Amino acid sequence: MQFTFTVTHKDTSSRARCGILTTPHGNIDTPVFMPVGTAGTVKAMPQEWLERLGAQIILSNTYHLYLRPGEEVIRPFGGLHRFMAWNRPILTDSGGYQVLSHEALRKISEEGVHFHSHLDGSAHFFSPERAIEIQQLLGADIVMAFDDCTAYPVTMEQAAESMRRSMRWAERCRAVHCDDSQVLFGIVQGSVFPDLRKESLERLCEIGFFGLALGGLSVGEPKLLTYETIQKVSEWMPPGPRYVMGVGTPLDLVECVRNGMDMFDCVLPTRNARNGTLYTWNGKISIKNARYRKDEEPIDFECTCLVCQRYSRAYLRHLYIANEMVGSILNTYHNLHFYLDLMAKVGESIRLNSFPEWERKFRAQYVVSE
Amino acid sequence: MQFTFTVTHKDTSSRARCGILTTPHGNIDTPVFMPVGTAGTVKAMPQEWLERLGAQIILSNTYHLYLRPGEEVIRPFGGLHRFMAWNRPILTDSGGYQVLSHEALRKISEEGVHFHSHLDGSAHFFSPERAIEIQQLLGADIVMAFDDCTAYPVTMEQAAESMRRSMRWAERCRAVHCDDSQVLFGIVQGSVFPDLRKESLERLCEIGFFGLALGGLSVGEPKLLTYETIQKVSEWMPPGPRYVMGVGTPLDLVECVRNGMDMFDCVLPTRNARNGTLYTWNGKISIKNARYRKDEEPIDFECTCLVCQRYSRAYLRHLYIANEMVGSILNTYHNLHFYLDLMAKVGESIRLNSFPEWERKFRAQYVVSE
Repeated sequence: MQFTFTVTHKDTSSRARCGILTTPHGNIDTPVFMPVGTAGTVKAMPQEWLERLGAQIILSNTYHLYLRPGEEVIRPFGGLHRFMAWNRPILTDSGGYQVLSHEALRKISEEGVHFHSHLDGSAHFFSPERAIEIQQLLGADIVMAFDDCTAYPVTMEQAAESMRRSMRWAERCRAVHCDDSQVLFGIVQGSVFPDLRKESLERLCEIGFFGLALGGLSVGEPKLLTYETIQKVSEWMPPGPRYVMGVGTPLDLVECVRNGMDMFDCVLPTRNARNGTLYTWNGKISIKNARYRKDEEPIDFECTCLVCQRYSRAYLRHLYIANEMVGSILNTYHNLHFYLDLMAKVGESIRLNSFPEWERKFRAQYVVSE
Repeated sequence: MQFTFTVTHKDTSSRARCGILTTPHGNIDTPVFMPVGTAGTVKAMPQEWLERLGAQIILSNTYHLYLRPGEEVIRPFGGLHRFMAWNRPILTDSGGYQVLSHEALRKISEEGVHFHSHLDGSAHFFSPERAIEIQQLLGADIVMAFDDCTAYPVTMEQAAESMRRSMRWAERCRAVHCDDSQVLFGIVQGSVFPDLRKESLERLCEIGFFGLALGGLSVGEPKLLTYETIQKVSEWMPPGPRYVMGVGTPLDLVECVRNGMDMFDCVLPTRNARNGTLYTWNGKISIKNARYRKDEEPIDFECTCLVCQRYSRAYLRHLYIANEMVGSILNTYHNLHFYLDLMAKVGESIRLNSFPEWERKFRAQYVVSE
C-alpha cells in the first residue's frame, strides 16, 4: 500500500505524538502544517521557495479550482500535481466549506448543494459524488469528504440535522471513491456539542476512512469552545491521522498537538504576511509600524529563514509602505518558515519526550496580541 | 583604481563590442542589461532570484528613494547596497528624468528644479549638487549627472537651451562629486538634433566623465529618429562605457549594440511581465490569450530559465487570470532571463566575431508585434 501512517513517538505526559504519513509523492512528518494554495498556488510563494522552505504538503481547493481554471484545463495535465508543477503531496478540501460559506448563494438539499460562482454568478451543483469525481481528477494525495459545514451559532437540533446529513454524504463519498492513488478523509461535524461530535465520529469510524478531520471549527465560536471541543473529540478519535481544518494561530496549533492532532492548515501565515503582520518567537509584529523605519535588525534574531539572514525590518517596512510585491514575497516566506519551524520544533520536543517543557517555554516567550 | 573599463572584443564588421567594467562590487560584462529596481527593489523579483538570474548590476532611482524611504532611513545602513541587501553593482539615475517627467509638478531655474512629490504633493528642490549629494549617500557604484531631460517634440532652440543647461549642470555635478567608491557618468542631451548632440558630447568630454549616457531618447520621438540619433552620436563617442538610458525593446538593444553601445536599462521586461506579455525568441506572446488555456508547453522551448523548465503556459495563464502574485513573479523571472540571455548571446557572438550573422538570424526569428 502506498499510504501508511505510523505513529513514531508519543509524549508521555500529553497526547502529543509524532508520525510519518507516506504517500505516492513522498513522506510527511507529523505534526505538519500545510500551506494553503487555494487556487493552485500558495499566494506570493513560487513552488521553488516552498521546496526550499521544506513544505512537505500543501493544501488546495476543489471549489476554487473547479471554477477556475476548471476541470477541462487540468484534465490534460493528468491532475493538479503536473498542472502546478508540484511533485510533493497535496491535500484538496472538498469544497463543502467554500460552497457553504457563501450562504446567500447556495441551496442545500439531501442530494447536494446548488450554488452560484463567486466569480461570475453562474449556477453549479456539487453532490458528494461530484465532489469526489472532481477531486479524483485533481489527483491530490489526500482528498476530503464533501460535508455540510455547520455554521455558528446554531441550535443543537440544527447542528444534529446538518451533521447527520454530512454523515450520509460521507457514506456516499466513501462509496464512490475508487482511486488507489489517493486516500479519503472523513470530516467530523457536530458544532460545539460533544454528543453530536461523538455520534459523528462513531459514524465515520463505521464507514471507514484512512484519516479523520475536525471540521466546523474556527467558524465564529468562542476559542474556549473550540479548544473544549477539540479536547473532548480528540480523546475519542482512532489512532489514524487527525487533521484540524482551518486552524489556526501558533498557540492553536500547539494546543491541538497536545491533544493528539497531526495536521493543520490555515491562511493566517500567508494572509498576515501580505498585510505586514509577521510572526516572531516573541509574538506577532506589524512591520508597517513607524518604530521599524530605521530598524537594521532582522524580523527575528532567533529565526533561521533566508529573509532574517539577509533583510532588515527597515527594508521590509519600506517594501510594505511602497506596496512592493517583493515585500509580500519575503513576508510570506518568513511567516511560512515560522509555521513550519514551529511544527518542526514541536515534533523534535515530542521525540525528545520534552513537549510539555517546550510548550511552557514557548508560551512564556510568545506574547499574544491577537 | 577600483573602476576600469576594458574593451575585450570588437566586431570587425560593425561597432559592436564586448568589455569588462570593474567596480568595487564586482565586474560587469558588457553589453549588459540592467534590471530596473525603482524603489530599491526590482518589482516581483527578490534579490535571491536576481542573483540566480545572473543579474550583474541593477538600476535604482534617486528621485524615488529620496522621497521614500528617504535619506535618513538609508543613511544608517551606509547606503543602498546594505539597505536592500544587494552586494552586486548598482547604478542610480540622478532623478532628472523623474523630476521632469511630471511637468505640471515642477519649475526649472538655472539653480535647479523645484518639484512636488508624486506621493504627497510636498515641495522639494533638486540641484545638481543636491542630486550628487543624495547619490553619494545612496552609494551606488555608478551615478548619473543631474540633467534637464528634454521632452519631445521640441524646437531646436528649446532643445539647445535645455541641453546647454544640462551641460552647465553636468559641470557642477562633476565639481562636487568627490566619492572615490563610485564613478560619475555624464548624459548627452540635444534631442534629435545631431549638431546639438555633438556639442553636448564635446562639452561632456571636456568636463571629463568615466562614462557617458545617451539621455532624452524614447521620450516620444519616432523610432527611426531614435535610431538615427544613436547611430550618429555613437560614432563620435569616446571609447569609455556608453549607456543608452531607458532603451528598450530586444530589437532596440541589438540595434544599439551594433552601434557600439554597452549598457541598457528598461522597465519593459518587468512591466510587461506583470501585464502578462512574455518574450520568446519568436517574439512576444500575451499569456492571457485563450489559446494558451490548455497549453502544456513552456513559454519558450528555446529558453533555459527555471520557469520554462518547470511551468506550462496553461498554468501561467491561470495565475494571470486569477490575478495571483506568483504569476507576476514567474513572468518577471522569465522576461528578465530573456533580456539577460539576449545580452549574453550578443556578447558571445561578438567574441566569436559573428555578431552580424547572429543578428540576421535573430531578426529572422524574432517576429515584431509591438
